[in-house]
Amino acid sequence: MAADSQSKLQLLQGHIRDFQDFPKKGVLFRDICPILKDPASLTAVTDLFEEHVKKHYKQVDLIVGMDARGFLFGPLLAQRLGIGFVLVRKKGKLPGPTVSVAYDLEYGKAEAEIQEDAVAPGQKVVLIDDLLATGGTLYAACELMRKQKAEVLGCMVVIELKELKGTDRLKPHGVFSLVQY
Amino acid sequence: MAADSQSKLQLLQGHIRDFQDFPKKGVLFRDICPILKDPASLTAVTDLFEEHVKKHYKQVDLIVGMDARGFLFGPLLAQRLGIGFVLVRKKGKLPGPTVSVAYDLEYGKAEAEIQEDAVAPGQKVVLIDDLLATGGTLYAACELMRKQKAEVLGCMVVIELKELKGTDRLKPHGVFSLVQY
Repeated sequence: MAADSQSKLQLLQGHIRDFQDFPKKGVLFRDICPILKDPASLTAVTDLFEEHVKKHYKQVDLIVGMDARGFLFGPLLAQRLGIGFVLVRKKGKLPGPTVSVAYDLEYGKAEAEIQEDAVAPGQKVVLIDDLLATGGTLYAACELMRKQKAEVLGCMVVIELKELKGTDRLKPHGVFSLVQY
Repeated sequence: MAADSQSKLQLLQGHIRDFQDFPKKGVLFRDICPILKDPASLTAVTDLFEEHVKKHYKQVDLIVGMDARGFLFGPLLAQRLGIGFVLVRKKGKLPGPTVSVAYDLEYGKAEAEIQEDAVAPGQKVVLIDDLLATGGTLYAACELMRKQKAEVLGCMVVIELKELKGTDRLKPHGVFSLVQY
């Protein structure tokens, strides 16, 4: 990796805080709020995502982001690439005809939803979220893309919690993460 | 208003869809998803917000955005201005010491929360959300800023639903909206 990218990663790592026992006892929560509060760190995230996309994908039509923290990073990347951003939301938040998929969360159950016309058959998309834990949300989003016949090029997250093996659940789709724990 | 800004507003207006009876009967829902999907429209939103901030506020320290759709627009504006972004979230989503305020939603009740160290006393902030309805969420966010002794310079939204009189509720803080219905 280029020295420039290394220093961006170090900047990022310095802006992730740990909180023990949140949202429940025994869980170590990785807090990304300091990244958002530091403009250089947030620029670094977008730079690193953009670099990965340009290096690995020939053509991307849309960035697809997860409710709610995927919304923090997705539009920035989409704007950088000059392409559109699509919202995956928790069930009941999107108007009009929708498609939904149920999934297991790290701490419960939920349903992910997109608007029926959010993606067109054959469109090439990259999925984005802040963090990969067990991979439930991103798995559901991949399923939504499959239902709508869009092609998932890969998933991108700021943080990957390796011991929860989210990457296994998302196979055959690859996951690019900036920081791993 | 400059011709350039007028054409940006027209572009935006063409990317807001209406859905009748969502989320409940009798409500006309204004859908901003097409703005996100069209890179030129999303750039236009950021341009217009940036223009307003630079024209009306001498110094802004932070952009404060509402969970979840304020997250779509806030980081873009913050990056454009080279300043940080702070998250106002629904209760229970933020780790560490927090401050919260209860408020009435257009369709129910909720509690808004920030991290205790999200803003420092005296910091000048601009609040951002996608839509102003009755103003409950933004009112709660203003209260959170007051609690933490930050100075609210104003609120900005993409869409204002004028008949719900959200601007009255937010007084003395001003609201800048791009599109009014």
